Amino acid sequence: MSIAYLNGRFLPIADARISVLDRGFLFAEGVYEVTAVIDGRLVDSASHLDRLARSAGEIGIALPLIPDEIEATQKQLVERNGLDEGLIYLQLTRGADESRDFLPAPDLQPTLVMFVQHKLFLNASAARTGIAVVTTPDLRWARRDIKSTGLLAQAMAKQIAAHAGAQEAWMVEDGHVTEGASSTAFIVTDDAIVTRAYSQAVLAGCTGAALTALAQEAGMTVVRRPFTVAEALGAKEAFITSASTLCQSVVRIDGQPIGDGRPGPVATRLREIYVDFARRTAV
Amino acid sequence: MSIAYLNGRFLPIADARISVLDRGFLFAEGVYEVTAVIDGRLVDSASHLDRLARSAGEIGIALPLIPDEIEATQKQLVERNGLDEGLIYLQLTRGADESRDFLPAPDLQPTLVMFVQHKLFLNASAARTGIAVVTTPDLRWARRDIKSTGLLAQAMAKQIAAHAGAQEAWMVEDGHVTEGASSTAFIVTDDAIVTRAYSQAVLAGCTGAALTALAQEAGMTVVRRPFTVAEALGAKEAFITSASTLCQSVVRIDGQPIGDGRPGPVATRLREIYVDFARRTAV
Repeated sequence: MSIAYLNGRFLPIADARISVLDRGFLFAEGVYEVTAVIDGRLVDSASHLDRLARSAGEIGIALPLIPDEIEATQKQLVERNGLDEGLIYLQLTRGADESRDFLPAPDLQPTLVMFVQHKLFLNASAARTGIAVVTTPDLRWARRDIKSTGLLAQAMAKQIAAHAGAQEAWMVEDGHVTEGASSTAFIVTDDAIVTRAYSQAVLAGCTGAALTALAQEAGMTVVRRPFTVAEALGAKEAFITSASTLCQSVVRIDGQPIGDGRPGPVATRLREIYVDFARRTAV
Repeated sequence: MSIAYLNGRFLPIADARISVLDRGFLFAEGVYEVTAVIDGRLVDSASHLDRLARSAGEIGIALPLIPDEIEATQKQLVERNGLDEGLIYLQLTRGADESRDFLPAPDLQPTLVMFVQHKLFLNASAARTGIAVVTTPDLRWARRDIKSTGLLAQAMAKQIAAHAGAQEAWMVEDGHVTEGASSTAFIVTDDAIVTRAYSQAVLAGCTGAALTALAQEAGMTVVRRPFTVAEALGAKEAFITSASTLCQSVVRIDGQPIGDGRPGPVATRLREIYVDFARRTAV
């Protein structure tokens, strides 16, 4: 049984329970982060904490701990769970109200929960074989830059992918890929690595941002612009990034092979570079 | 302390707690209903239960109780809480998983929670004075026909309304009003009562549907079509319907008075007709 953190206490996750009046449960009024843990240390932690603060600020929830305290708590969770490789999930909600009303009572105490998941993703078979993706309409709301727990559209997209034997869904809006249900989407053309520019239409991926910077440091060209499904199908390579997959090649989209249907050199190289960065900078 | 219902048990609401691994909390993977209680009886219950079954079906959650059992449970809740006038809130989620993954484990046990709120809405002052509404962009997802708990956009719209001194937000998309953050939107023109047609762009309001049928029975003309904010500002009357407001006149939109700035005869008459229907048919 793993140990979770809930509002200042460490406790077995089975005992980590919240009120049914929590606004995270009633209104999806909450934000979250997933941070990778490698070698028992937090990967790209500052970036995740920055994004958490931004998401919380956008919906007007004050962080109950300063970022340094959150990071220290995450380190304690890693230690208490003996976590060498896996993920830390963090969720912050407006908190539990006295009753249900769209308008929260003033000065509610936010709910902050964190728990770990053991997951061996460094040697994940999907990283060697690549994954299959299906495209599906992007049904989400207009503020995807906020990493909110309103994830029903993404959960539905993941089910569509699973039913098609795929591991991820790429969501499509106005003919262009926005992003994956839980990842950032990239293609590799003759000239460049292409991924969508930041806007309210997509989440600013922490792993994607780090990997993009690393790619540029390695002399690769990164172009931020929308791309179509047709362009992705004709690309030399495609790949996704996220905290829980790091960087994985996409070898099939809607059943059609990308390139020669095997992980390509760019995505493979970028994964190596990212893992090296992650190990080197983890805290 | 009120008594709630959670997964087969009645218990004080302070003890009604769910796992942080509940997918309603982690993914907003849940649906809900709010049913009015008048004279200790459930208003328009069959309509709410039908919609619950439809919402649950659309996201693939099986009802853990048949509708008759849910209604019987709601009646018990009314009795245990001595509720004469107020609301019953019901939420159904996919249930708690062993860990967090976008794909749920198969055969999860859904979470079903219900609780009551005492609220005197028959004599609400807002029903006599009318309410103010502000318009705001509709940020919601594309499946608003599903009454899901992914309500962050609506909660944000309600805050915008409150900051402007208004009681409701009318959400606007492509120049047309979709609906209120927690209500159905109507205007009254020279010829007809106008409200939006059913589609995935709006929730099919139970109270609005009943009231529309009652209006037609009373000889009024109802036209289902989109209307613009400008048209609403120039309307003779405007009003909202919902389980918790029944029918309330909108007397100001974005600070501008509608008609003479007081509740109009059509909305006033429809409220009377609806309250009579509610009392007559409550179970």
